[in-house]
Amino acid sequence: MMQAAKERWDFLTKPPGSLGKLEEIGIRLAGLQGTVFPKVDKRAVVVMCGDHGVTEEGVSAFPSEVTGLMMQNFANGKAAVNVLARQMSSDVLVVDVGSRVEGEVPGVISRKVRQGTANFAKGPAMSREEAEQAIAVGVEIVEQLHQQGVQVVALGEMGIGNTTPSAALAAVFTSKSVPESSRATSEGSAKDAGHGKAGTALANGSTLLQLVGRGTGIDDEKVLHKAGVIERAIEVNQPDASDPLDVLAKLGGLEIAGLVGVVLGAWERKIAVLVDGVIAAAAALVAVKMQSQAKEILFASHLSQEPAHLVMLQEMGLQPLLTLDMRLGEGTGAVLAMPLLEASCRLVEEMATFADLGLDKP
Amino acid sequence: MMQAAKERWDFLTKPPGSLGKLEEIGIRLAGLQGTVFPKVDKRAVVVMCGDHGVTEEGVSAFPSEVTGLMMQNFANGKAAVNVLARQMSSDVLVVDVGSRVEGEVPGVISRKVRQGTANFAKGPAMSREEAEQAIAVGVEIVEQLHQQGVQVVALGEMGIGNTTPSAALAAVFTSKSVPESSRATSEGSAKDAGHGKAGTALANGSTLLQLVGRGTGIDDEKVLHKAGVIERAIEVNQPDASDPLDVLAKLGGLEIAGLVGVVLGAWERKIAVLVDGVIAAAAALVAVKMQSQAKEILFASHLSQEPAHLVMLQEMGLQPLLTLDMRLGEGTGAVLAMPLLEASCRLVEEMATFADLGLDKP
Repeated sequence: MMQAAKERWDFLTKPPGSLGKLEEIGIRLAGLQGTVFPKVDKRAVVVMCGDHGVTEEGVSAFPSEVTGLMMQNFANGKAAVNVLARQMSSDVLVVDVGSRVEGEVPGVISRKVRQGTANFAKGPAMSREEAEQAIAVGVEIVEQLHQQGVQVVALGEMGIGNTTPSAALAAVFTSKSVPESSRATSEGSAKDAGHGKAGTALANGSTLLQLVGRGTGIDDEKVLHKAGVIERAIEVNQPDASDPLDVLAKLGGLEIAGLVGVVLGAWERKIAVLVDGVIAAAAALVAVKMQSQAKEILFASHLSQEPAHLVMLQEMGLQPLLTLDMRLGEGTGAVLAMPLLEASCRLVEEMATFADLGLDKP
Repeated sequence: MMQAAKERWDFLTKPPGSLGKLEEIGIRLAGLQGTVFPKVDKRAVVVMCGDHGVTEEGVSAFPSEVTGLMMQNFANGKAAVNVLARQMSSDVLVVDVGSRVEGEVPGVISRKVRQGTANFAKGPAMSREEAEQAIAVGVEIVEQLHQQGVQVVALGEMGIGNTTPSAALAAVFTSKSVPESSRATSEGSAKDAGHGKAGTALANGSTLLQLVGRGTGIDDEKVLHKAGVIERAIEVNQPDASDPLDVLAKLGGLEIAGLVGVVLGAWERKIAVLVDGVIAAAAALVAVKMQSQAKEILFASHLSQEPAHLVMLQEMGLQPLLTLDMRLGEGTGAVLAMPLLEASCRLVEEMATFADLGLDKP
């Protein structure tokens, strides 16, 4: 089917290959949906919410309470992801898989596995069983969406502190994927700042500092502190990189585990998944480490300002479509890419072929 | 007004700056439209069409006849730009400002200044007066659009051979904008290929080969030939870089001049303009050289595979939003960016503020 789709794209009235990634998207969607004319009209963004014990280490610019406030904001339809989803004709599902909020928030699907993770700088973020339960939540949600005929799912999340576990997962799972040039620079800046430890090379040849970003807006000093916290978490927990569930439970988050479930469930159903920023990419990467073929359903959306994002996209062989310097999460970048998938579907269906113009060939 | 818009963006429920370029777009549109809540609901793409005498030098993979066939295709609503414009609720205006087609094509606005340019490798592409007439066509079209209430115009074009004049314009107008690293590489490859002439540094420090791309799909050898043709054109015509109209007439194209008029007319009316690929960027750059404040209305869309594109965007201080590896033209990349401008407008209007959540400040 992908071969048939490629032939169709080559006979549309344009120089072959000139629509770039839109052609690749169309060919991949054809493979997933088993038709040269795929559709992405029925869409949803799943916003998994969870809190993080590691916030007590002072790794975020915002307090954990903001997670609950934002869940309310999502439920009211007034957060950024709601606005963009309305524009793109996408449903929004907000799922509380692990916030610290007591009880339920009206308008939010309540599937709380526990009230926030433990501080992973002192021990595992959660148990192996809790990680499995959170994954099951994601699988359940995507099964619902499949029954509603959803063809593309965007990965969204909310959880104050969650760029920290995402960078930790990137550190464990990515190796040799940091370019030599950026490696040199980051090592230099770490040394200059007198933080030799966070700047020392990991076993995989990258350094933690290359993977650690500003999250919601911390300064240089806090970035160094954040890298140190992650380094400590890896030392304390000794995650087994060959056992993705072990790594997820020890260093991940409940909303991240929920998104792992969304990816695994979508792979079973051959539903296209739009990856958002660094947290969604971490979840997608864990899913790929569990089931390498899950790559087939993944589509990158934007390139985040978080440095671990590109490293993880590269590890999965994904190339971003949008370069908007965003760092918000919620699924906002993924929702913004929905019209690009739609464009690909419309082009292959509605464009004239060379035959229509009375020509044999390009 | 831009200051007021910035304050509004900072009080929306997200970390300040976390929506990246969408915030910048919103602030710039606020300045243009004189309101914190700008709108881009009324949209049009203007596809200027023209032919090029330089095609007799064998610089393109397609014959000039394809320009006329594609004008028919646009009129039938079946080219890529038509499909994307339907998706994005944009009007499409196709304007014949200089094709070789005899007579009129139904559905195409006929404003032919002349039937294609002369071969600029042997003398000026057109006269100064013809360039001015083509500019006037663009001004007239955008005046019509203004009367219809259009808030954003995308620059589109069709003209077999037109990446050649675009690279020539880039060579004359860009200086010191090619990064040192890519300079070294291109000089190297030019030397390796034994084409020392096209590889020699221009007065502005770049080399022609860095600016010359594959257009609709020529091979390495033809790329070197194309660079040689451009070098000859510059030698033969001796354009005066301090006189943009002189450069445009000698090395440009009729559709390029038409788009220069669209930009100048849009600047008069403070209408936002989405730049497309390398040809549209060349037109925008000529307009900016004529009227430097015209930068204020320009928004980049995608990053083309044509190497001169990024160089010219940088010269104008513009950053692309989409990285889709496209090289089609027609305005396709610009139309694909329309939802991003719309997203910016919707976010500033529909998102909750921190006050709505009961908070004083971010």
